[in-house]
Amino acid sequence: MDQLRRLADQGVTDRAALDALLDSQWVGVLSCVVEGAPLAVPMLYARDGDRLLLHGSTGAGALRRVAAGAPAVLTVVALDALVVAPTTFESSVNYRSATVRGPLLALPDDERTAALDLFSEVLLPGRTSEVRPATPKELAATLALALPIRPDGWLMKVADGWPATPAESGAADDVWSGLVPVRSTLGDPVPAPWAVDLPVPPSVRRLTAGDA
Amino acid sequence: MDQLRRLADQGVTDRAALDALLDSQWVGVLSCVVEGAPLAVPMLYARDGDRLLLHGSTGAGALRRVAAGAPAVLTVVALDALVVAPTTFESSVNYRSATVRGPLLALPDDERTAALDLFSEVLLPGRTSEVRPATPKELAATLALALPIRPDGWLMKVADGWPATPAESGAADDVWSGLVPVRSTLGDPVPAPWAVDLPVPPSVRRLTAGDA
Repeated sequence: MDQLRRLADQGVTDRAALDALLDSQWVGVLSCVVEGAPLAVPMLYARDGDRLLLHGSTGAGALRRVAAGAPAVLTVVALDALVVAPTTFESSVNYRSATVRGPLLALPDDERTAALDLFSEVLLPGRTSEVRPATPKELAATLALALPIRPDGWLMKVADGWPATPAESGAADDVWSGLVPVRSTLGDPVPAPWAVDLPVPPSVRRLTAGDA
Repeated sequence: MDQLRRLADQGVTDRAALDALLDSQWVGVLSCVVEGAPLAVPMLYARDGDRLLLHGSTGAGALRRVAAGAPAVLTVVALDALVVAPTTFESSVNYRSATVRGPLLALPDDERTAALDLFSEVLLPGRTSEVRPATPKELAATLALALPIRPDGWLMKVADGWPATPAESGAADDVWSGLVPVRSTLGDPVPAPWAVDLPVPPSVRRLTAGDA
């Protein structure tokens, strides 16, 4: 398999492609440095134009550290297909990945409520109008962070397409090769035990109608 | 949304659960430190018992650095469901994540061929017997790395289950809540244009019959 060479070969500079990837996923990996060692934490994120919103508990150590301005990078990956080539050396995966480099900014109190509402709205559009507003206590317990998407602050890599041919691979012509697509899909909503008699709300209906 | 508090709450120490997560995914994010800043690279990996095998081009800078013994951590995440709670504050995701901490070991020449074959076999069992062996030139171009899974070298977090109840959330009883499952599935194999008349090989048939 040959994933890193493909990574190096296929940088993408189209901002629309970056946005499409970021908008298609919910979770990224936030990497930062703590006492010289790498620290990585999976994080929900939501894109708001030229920034990514993240949030977490005010008690979370890693998050407090990046909130204080330590360098950080958020990595988002979508796996699109297994690439079964005529040789193991040429076999790989089709994927899209992006890294967005910080520092993260902790949002001040007067921006936090709006940012957290927006975070919820991006992840599940329409939901904030179906539930009560966050309470002051909830807001006080939540750190809201923004990671700006600066023109020189992101990298995107894409591997897409067919495997190397038998001739390119130095392989016999009768070895099957092709793609095995990998898909992420949303299942039907499952009500909580106390909600089985309630109608599925519009936000959830729209989400699952549109799919992941 | 409240993902980080859940992360902090739900550590898992069951090694079998770790192995099941690692074996269910293909791609992780490798985080290391370069000149004080975090560097993150998506990587294919394959579990071989108590170690994870990774590989890449001998020309890849980040990989050469971690191969030289720099601290590194591989993060693997599976998103299982969106958790739609009666409030935005309690809404979150169900997921499984693992971090496996290095350093990575570069495998010596006499172990590399076997490790790379094993890597291919874990990702697509049976494939190595369907294709020609790797050539000396291919092997020379490929770095093989091992990340030991040490008893004190990994952390797993799991969020699973229903959202907080209306009473726990301080919400009205008539607000729907529940889960939206997220599934990763494999599609039917798609032959490369030059392979449309060839039978799909057993390795690929087994993979897609078993699903992701």
